Amino acid sequence: MHLFYTPDIQPQHTAFILNEEESKHAVRVLRLSAGQQVQLIDGRGGRYTAVMADAHPKRAVLEIVAVRASEGNHPYHLHIAIAPTKNMDRMEWFLEKATEVGVDEITPIICDHSERTTVKAERLHKVAVAAMKQSQRAYLPQVNPAIDFAAFVERELPGKRFIAHCADGDKKYFSQLLKPGESATVLIGPEGDFSTAEIDAAIRRGFIPTTFGPMRLRTETAALVACVEAHLLHIDFVGN
Amino acid sequence: MHLFYTPDIQPQHTAFILNEEESKHAVRVLRLSAGQQVQLIDGRGGRYTAVMADAHPKRAVLEIVAVRASEGNHPYHLHIAIAPTKNMDRMEWFLEKATEVGVDEITPIICDHSERTTVKAERLHKVAVAAMKQSQRAYLPQVNPAIDFAAFVERELPGKRFIAHCADGDKKYFSQLLKPGESATVLIGPEGDFSTAEIDAAIRRGFIPTTFGPMRLRTETAALVACVEAHLLHIDFVGN
Repeated sequence: MHLFYTPDIQPQHTAFILNEEESKHAVRVLRLSAGQQVQLIDGRGGRYTAVMADAHPKRAVLEIVAVRASEGNHPYHLHIAIAPTKNMDRMEWFLEKATEVGVDEITPIICDHSERTTVKAERLHKVAVAAMKQSQRAYLPQVNPAIDFAAFVERELPGKRFIAHCADGDKKYFSQLLKPGESATVLIGPEGDFSTAEIDAAIRRGFIPTTFGPMRLRTETAALVACVEAHLLHIDFVGN
Repeated sequence: MHLFYTPDIQPQHTAFILNEEESKHAVRVLRLSAGQQVQLIDGRGGRYTAVMADAHPKRAVLEIVAVRASEGNHPYHLHIAIAPTKNMDRMEWFLEKATEVGVDEITPIICDHSERTTVKAERLHKVAVAAMKQSQRAYLPQVNPAIDFAAFVERELPGKRFIAHCADGDKKYFSQLLKPGESATVLIGPEGDFSTAEIDAAIRRGFIPTTFGPMRLRTETAALVACVEAHLLHIDFVGN
């Protein structure tokens, strides 16, 4: 069944009008006609079954026939603060895979060794929406505007806070520090790693140094491994 | 330090001559000169420290000054048999990430629902070599030629055997079926999943049905999640 991302829909709605772009896509591209069923997701866990009532190419009207207001999400909040990769394909790839596997919030952080210092938030949002639809999830990760590392670590952040770096020092494995279902923020550095000053600043602010193993991972791989590990800890816990 | 992949090197060698392509790269591109140190890896866990003795652009001579014949690899053998994705970028991406995280053998399998039925093995080999060098690992995963699903499941395969599919049926989580350090072969299906006949054939041959969680993962994401899970089971085990 075709899936539409409609962030404005609310559980009390009995009908919904697709915006001009989605209407055109539904009627001209997908050739949906009156009576056909579709699904709407709001990105916050809500999933709606709807029937095309008026296949208007600019303002298609859908009648809501069933609502599941809150689909089960994982019971933790995972926030990945990642230095945007020099090659944006790698960042977009991370976002796609993380959306599939499960992530709640992503903040691009500009670091001392960052080669890239700007990020097109709109483009990342589109990648996340496409990945959410592809993986048939009802949750859209929140992609925040880019922020400087120094400002980010000063923020109040819920749950445990980690810094994954490649420098020497006392580090435990991420999977041994995070408990099942625990919320976390994980800092992932740029291609040239965090600077010593950044690592020190994060530790002073209470971030726990961590690693994913002895291998050297690219920025986007490390960030995805964090998402897979959080997911895995959770399913192992609920599954046992 | 610059890293060269030299599969022909042996621990008893005291010198090594780079082939024409690598010599050109070393001397013309990297501008290495006599006396400079480089590292050689053989893809089988051997890591050699060498000094440029003669910076010849066609047959550069390296003097071996230190040998670590067998670098620690993970103690399991993980074999991913994956339906090549329609878009080869996705397959190459998987190979790059799996090489970083750790995988031993990859076999492209042609399935009933495969849209792609040919794979350029040489191209995949190059991607794996680049990822191995990038991640500074000394192990190169073996990339096998593509084979039909039916022929593959009839093979003798060491360790536990799994089929990860999206169809209904009794399935346990992969991380609950695999024990730390255990070797495994995991079948990962194409975009349209395995056919019912394929799932039945695999189960008859002793493959265990498995899943990575309730979310729908793309082919290449599922394959990478299998690699991360095997790695994580192992480090959690040795780390505890």
